[in-house]
Amino acid sequence: MHANALPIPPVIRLAVDCMGGDHGPAVTLPACRAFLRNHPEAGIVLVGREADLASASAWERCSIVHATEVIEMHDPIEIALRKKKDSSLRVALSLVKADEQGVSRAQACVSAGNTGALMALSRYVLKTLEGIDRPAIAAVLPNQKDGFTTVLDLGANVDCTPENLLQFAVMGSALVAALGGNENPSVGLLNIGEEAMKGNEVIKQAAELLRVAAAGGHLNFYGNVEGNDVFKGTTDIVVCDGFVGNVLLKAAEGLAAMLTAFIKQEFRRNIFTKMAAVVALPVLNHFKRRVDHRRYSGGALLGLRGLVFKAHGGSDAYAFEQALNRAYDAASNRLLDRVHDRILETLAAMPGTSVSAAPTAADATLSA
Amino acid sequence: MHANALPIPPVIRLAVDCMGGDHGPAVTLPACRAFLRNHPEAGIVLVGREADLASASAWERCSIVHATEVIEMHDPIEIALRKKKDSSLRVALSLVKADEQGVSRAQACVSAGNTGALMALSRYVLKTLEGIDRPAIAAVLPNQKDGFTTVLDLGANVDCTPENLLQFAVMGSALVAALGGNENPSVGLLNIGEEAMKGNEVIKQAAELLRVAAAGGHLNFYGNVEGNDVFKGTTDIVVCDGFVGNVLLKAAEGLAAMLTAFIKQEFRRNIFTKMAAVVALPVLNHFKRRVDHRRYSGGALLGLRGLVFKAHGGSDAYAFEQALNRAYDAASNRLLDRVHDRILETLAAMPGTSVSAAPTAADATLSA
Repeated sequence: MHANALPIPPVIRLAVDCMGGDHGPAVTLPACRAFLRNHPEAGIVLVGREADLASASAWERCSIVHATEVIEMHDPIEIALRKKKDSSLRVALSLVKADEQGVSRAQACVSAGNTGALMALSRYVLKTLEGIDRPAIAAVLPNQKDGFTTVLDLGANVDCTPENLLQFAVMGSALVAALGGNENPSVGLLNIGEEAMKGNEVIKQAAELLRVAAAGGHLNFYGNVEGNDVFKGTTDIVVCDGFVGNVLLKAAEGLAAMLTAFIKQEFRRNIFTKMAAVVALPVLNHFKRRVDHRRYSGGALLGLRGLVFKAHGGSDAYAFEQALNRAYDAASNRLLDRVHDRILETLAAMPGTSVSAAPTAADATLSA
Repeated sequence: MHANALPIPPVIRLAVDCMGGDHGPAVTLPACRAFLRNHPEAGIVLVGREADLASASAWERCSIVHATEVIEMHDPIEIALRKKKDSSLRVALSLVKADEQGVSRAQACVSAGNTGALMALSRYVLKTLEGIDRPAIAAVLPNQKDGFTTVLDLGANVDCTPENLLQFAVMGSALVAALGGNENPSVGLLNIGEEAMKGNEVIKQAAELLRVAAAGGHLNFYGNVEGNDVFKGTTDIVVCDGFVGNVLLKAAEGLAAMLTAFIKQEFRRNIFTKMAAVVALPVLNHFKRRVDHRRYSGGALLGLRGLVFKAHGGSDAYAFEQALNRAYDAASNRLLDRVHDRILETLAAMPGTSVSAAPTAADATLSA
């Protein structure tokens, strides 16, 4: 599917897996409703058990697609792939899949479900884009420059090859260009800073590939960065394997939670600190909003023949709505085409790769 | 060297590389002076250029050993190992090396120098303990239980085998037992939480080794933990490879720095927030002391035939003094023997390993 050739659909429609996440429809429905209110030109397809979605049956620009099964947060991938063939997640993903004419019923899918199942089903239903070996999960973290650092991969791929890391860099660049309006975002390769051991072999080879891509003008490669650079905002994008990215993300969540708890404890210590808290409250609330991780909710699964966004499993309605917003922005800004174009352009220019420059509609409908 | 057989020296002496770190003697000398004041039973051997250390020549319980060369923070390892043979770091390490009678001039070495050089020279001068393939760097991070989580490895080993990770777990247990007084600390194996991909092959095999060691009563293995568990304090110890550990540590430093900067900005926003800051200041200062990373300064290099502690390169005198304190506590609590004993005990009980139970003094003086 090369959507440049397609007419832009009159409205952007999102396919929403309403049953996913820790809270299911109790969170997804209010989020969808708020999203529809804030996007008068958008539509939503709610996917899930009809009985659970009945309250939305009269909403405007909203249709309901019935799916009888639900993938639980701890269902193994095999269950998601082989047993629950009518799961809300799978049905939602299939709505994003292009038909033979390259047309799909929805332009992006959003789920707060089980990441493993989401990744496996996405690959199975949508397939990867030409030139991409593995999809990656990208998300943004706030940085000290009052901007965001896009980090990928955040957990889809435990072991990565240098080629995977190059692909992540290119996909991340397309994402930041599409959503951040920065056509030439800088890319850092996550490494460790000690002189002894500037990374392992994979990292060294990835750096070499990134340098070649940068020399060809296909990438703005900054060089190696370290863990603290993510929060310094040294580069727009930080590329790493999914193991390291996942540890980094969760450690950041854990540290932020700890520091927040400590601040609360300090202000509750005694009557004087409680009085200080009253005075400091507006400032602290402003700070809290600024680092509210719900604002950054919505990881993008990149490298698939369809747009898929993942909200945190524990999302509340506000966080889930942010994921819907990001999916909407990605669809409006034609992220899929941008990723596709960038990856073909970059890989075509790399020595030793063989990617045909002209994908066909048949690619999109290829079944496993 | 199996120091159980040795008489406990009358005082603990620390060998200090006074030239290491970003600031050299300007930081190390005041730290040593404060340390000596607070430890009336301890001695220090200052190592560095005589001219730079002259101000300490009259200090009590303090001697000066001249070293003509200095390893700069960005000197490559080859320079440290092959060229600068009279560096302060190398001379300081050699003071910790046991002679043929198992006696050394100092019981621990402390440096704020270049980590790569410190690790390489430590291995070269001191050698690794029997049963240890590679030394690891261990440090503590604060956790939400108001305690500390010991994390290793933090950057010495980029690629690790399952056996390395087992050794790190055992060494970390010995460290926490010696310094934290907890004889049976729990160990978590750092992994990622998504169902899809519970770690790579190395992690899976390491988990198996840790389970075997735990079944034999040699380790308190909790199981897999994730990045946020470090700050939750789920386990006393978290084991990971040096790449992941280094990224985690630096990301935590970066995030903490960002949040601190944000809080400051919020309180400086306008006249009202500045007034709130005055009221909140004592509370914020208390919070700041609580998470002051300088308190946690002093990573331990474990697995060597001698105690070596590393302070952060950018340490100020307070932070460097904390590293001296940790080195002193480790020496007083016979950390070296504990690591040695635990590792032999554990490995002897593991199927497929061959470690002799009785090391000899000759082991300690083995030269490469």
